[in-house]
Amino acid sequence: MSRLDSFIRRMMAQRDVIAAAASLIDGLPGPILELGLGNGRTYHHLRETFPDRRIIAFDRALAAHSASIPPPGDLVLGEIDETARAFAGIGAALVHADIATGTVEGDRRLAGWLPALIRDLLAPGGIAASGSPLELPDLRPLTLPAGVPEGRYFLYRRA
Amino acid sequence: MSRLDSFIRRMMAQRDVIAAAASLIDGLPGPILELGLGNGRTYHHLRETFPDRRIIAFDRALAAHSASIPPPGDLVLGEIDETARAFAGIGAALVHADIATGTVEGDRRLAGWLPALIRDLLAPGGIAASGSPLELPDLRPLTLPAGVPEGRYFLYRRA
Ligand SMILES: C[S@@+](CC[C@H](N)C(=O)[O-])C[C@H]1O[C@@H](n2cnc3c(N)ncnc32)[C@H](O)[C@@H]1O
Ligand code: NI
Ligand code: NI
Repeated sequence: MSRLDSFIRRMMAQRDVIAAAASLIDGLPGPILELGLGNGRTYHHLRETFPDRRIIAFDRALAAHSASIPPPGDLVLGEIDETARAFAGIGAALVHADIATGTVEGDRRLAGWLPALIRDLLAPGGIAASGSPLELPDLRPLTLPAGVPEGRYFLYRRA
Repeated sequence: MSRLDSFIRRMMAQRDVIAAAASLIDGLPGPILELGLGNGRTYHHLRETFPDRRIIAFDRALAAHSASIPPPGDLVLGEIDETARAFAGIGAALVHADIATGTVEGDRRLAGWLPALIRDLLAPGGIAASGSPLELPDLRPLTLPAGVPEGRYFLYRRA
């Protein structure tokens, strides 16, 4: 499979997983956190999917398209493992993270801090959707939507 | 439509247009030129689609994933309107260009040099696939593959 094919599948998996998360958090109050704003395509999609929720986006630097720039106060710049700590206990209904590093060593380091951070950001019963696995007893893996291949995206509910 | 939806559609249109181009250049000799290597996902896909053709990639700087780096001699760095000029007459079977600037003024300037450059790179009967329109009498618009929305991608045959 070409990298283009694989990328299209990952973007479609992301969209399907966000749609599933929308049903899963229906009725659960709380903001949405986007870890890794990047170009802001996902943030834009989250805004469309959750027009009534506050969405806070994090990145080390602002590199988003002009149509995807969060309002002041909803954009937090800096290293996420440092900046997002301050939001522990915010009771997020959904945390989405798409910040895989692309290197084995980088992903190993990410796996060291991301799962516990996401647990602390989520409300009990809140949902995590991630491009990389989040291995932690408090985060219970959920079945992926039909059509999303195993291992391409990950979905959890906080205990 | 969200920017994520729109991006997925553009990537799928690109893939469909490349598949259509593969049939259209069947039997026509000549290399393939990728104008705008970027991350290299499309280059990777072109390599898979055209394993027996030389593929020359252009960009102002190398920013591609390690799996998508062309062999030395098939990567040309610098401003494409200058570097690709030297390849006029190479008789390309296919030129793919996905280098829209994202600004009205930038796209207007692009439209000033890209169409004639692509014509000069193509063999007679060669195919141009582009993310932005190429308006030039020598480049005859072709019907897009079914499912590619009008205006999302462009396909031409050099007279
Ligand atoms: C794959 S991109 C996200 C793409 C995004 N979903 C979109 O739609 O454009 C990952 C982003 O996360 C950011 N990032 C990754 N690790 C980070 C970290 N530890 N701290 C801050 N930002 C980080 C990068 O700067 C990059 O912009
Ligand atoms: Ni890779
Ligand atoms: Ni735009």
